[in-house]
Amino acid sequence: MSAQRNRQITLVSRPQGLPTLANFRIVEGHLPAAKNGEVVIQTVYLSVDPYMRNRMNESSGYISAFQIGHPLTGGVVGKVIESKSPSYKPGDFVLAFSEWADFSAVSSNELQKLDSSRAPLSTALGILGMPGMTAYFGLLDIGKPKPDETVVVSAAAGIVGSIVGQIAKIKGCRVVGLAGSDAKIDYLVHELKFDHAINYKKNNFADLLREATPNGVDVYFDNVGGDITDHVLHRINRHARIVVCGQISMYNASKPDIGPRNLYLLLINSALAKGFIVDEYEERFPEGIRQLSQWLQERKIKYRENIIEGLENAPNAFLGLFSGDNIGKQLVKVS
Amino acid sequence: MSAQRNRQITLVSRPQGLPTLANFRIVEGHLPAAKNGEVVIQTVYLSVDPYMRNRMNESSGYISAFQIGHPLTGGVVGKVIESKSPSYKPGDFVLAFSEWADFSAVSSNELQKLDSSRAPLSTALGILGMPGMTAYFGLLDIGKPKPDETVVVSAAAGIVGSIVGQIAKIKGCRVVGLAGSDAKIDYLVHELKFDHAINYKKNNFADLLREATPNGVDVYFDNVGGDITDHVLHRINRHARIVVCGQISMYNASKPDIGPRNLYLLLINSALAKGFIVDEYEERFPEGIRQLSQWLQERKIKYRENIIEGLENAPNAFLGLFSGDNIGKQLVKVS
Repeated sequence: MSAQRNRQITLVSRPQGLPTLANFRIVEGHLPAAKNGEVVIQTVYLSVDPYMRNRMNESSGYISAFQIGHPLTGGVVGKVIESKSPSYKPGDFVLAFSEWADFSAVSSNELQKLDSSRAPLSTALGILGMPGMTAYFGLLDIGKPKPDETVVVSAAAGIVGSIVGQIAKIKGCRVVGLAGSDAKIDYLVHELKFDHAINYKKNNFADLLREATPNGVDVYFDNVGGDITDHVLHRINRHARIVVCGQISMYNASKPDIGPRNLYLLLINSALAKGFIVDEYEERFPEGIRQLSQWLQERKIKYRENIIEGLENAPNAFLGLFSGDNIGKQLVKVS
Repeated sequence: MSAQRNRQITLVSRPQGLPTLANFRIVEGHLPAAKNGEVVIQTVYLSVDPYMRNRMNESSGYISAFQIGHPLTGGVVGKVIESKSPSYKPGDFVLAFSEWADFSAVSSNELQKLDSSRAPLSTALGILGMPGMTAYFGLLDIGKPKPDETVVVSAAAGIVGSIVGQIAKIKGCRVVGLAGSDAKIDYLVHELKFDHAINYKKNNFADLLREATPNGVDVYFDNVGGDITDHVLHRINRHARIVVCGQISMYNASKPDIGPRNLYLLLINSALAKGFIVDEYEERFPEGIRQLSQWLQERKIKYRENIIEGLENAPNAFLGLFSGDNIGKQLVKVS
């Protein structure tokens, strides 16, 4: 029976620069068994996210590094197939932080039960999961957008950026999205109703940005860093807030990234820049989930998913995050 | 009578890079007369401050630019010699924001009466004035130091930096000062009782900084920017606060300053960087003055002044701010 076969995706070498398929290996093992207090889940969806690139480095900064020869881990939606916990029974759907594998054993304390009748299961990895919480708390708690302010978001067609922009619209802001393809620009303006969207690959990006932000920039939700961010920082207003959510332009850098020093821009604008990781808001996740669920039901927020089939394709799905092609949330459907 | 002669220091050209004496000219004119609601003050002390360099540029950022052919302006302690305001009488000492001149006419609304029996007049331009308020509110409101945290301050022997470090000591922090001469290091450690002070001109500055901050850096009060700041940012802890008070290393730059991009360090440390100007705290100045006065009386805080005599030497006093020789507050005694 095929369910007895458990494949895991392991990291076999640390990427130098951009990761390649050679950094990953698929290994087969036994179906895990649940110890007391554990359940075994069959992976339904697994999430690939840009922040995972940092975990592939020896020293990963803010989150524990992946270990060579071990499975990668991340957000997973799974179906319980064996339970040694009174809280879960076979057939339950759960959100877990577990292995890139067909099956894994997880402590029941680290699970969250999902109700597939309330929202599609996949949303637990997207708009109602970590990316949604990142957008919600980063924008509202650090960015603090006020009506009529200008909010700029980079990587705007990604799941985090697309939610940030839509929340900012709900809050009455003028929203400008930055993205890297015409298809994304079209999505942001025509489907998500951003006020403006700019392809940062255009030669005249700085001019386009200036035209799109005639009143300057009050909130910049930054997912990318680098050149793009340099341009936005030159447009910030007094008391601007820079939400430092991601710096994907640097994740694959093998040497320090050099650019214009920017603290002076914070100084002359009395501006704030703040990094964060979403776990810091964990106690407030119920608030975020409740609000985003309501906006979803009211059709005030939309999202897209890009689903790749097959555990074996998880490395490809991850690499795709850096080619800039994906719109919305990138998921891998495993079973 | 010599009092009838009024000299003013004017800006005759905008500096390219480091200012020189050729950018200034002394001109003579008539003694000004007070209009209704004005007083004429005789300048006792005038303050030279690094931020004034920005005002010498065509576009000065956060504060109005000096105009070519007009007198420079700044913080001044003056003695009222003529009054057309019911609130002031000749002989009163006042704090004003007025011209680099022997005499100037100032609206009485923009004055603050000084009581020379409570504190030396010069302190109104130093510890009980703008530099003191800058240190107090920048450190406490943005830096929010907690007992046992490590606070690093750059330009530590300047008036702002020296007050920052002493307040941090009062708050129970471990304090590390960065300065550019052995005389300053000696002052910081032996007179102000900083835990450590490091001469950033030493080749092994990075090593010395690491040794002096074994527990990392929780608060960095930055007056300088550039390389020094790059080194400190590599030592920040999770949830560190960077108080962006000054960036003197960039004030004389004629082209953009290039360095390692730093938002990534904010990201992985969930750190905050915040620029500010002290005027934003104007409503709370009474609190700051009261507290700093108390600490002065209790001898918990010390300060030094470096006083140059003669209005004609004000440009030299200003240029001296950039040669890095001054300890404490740089003042010009005019009368």
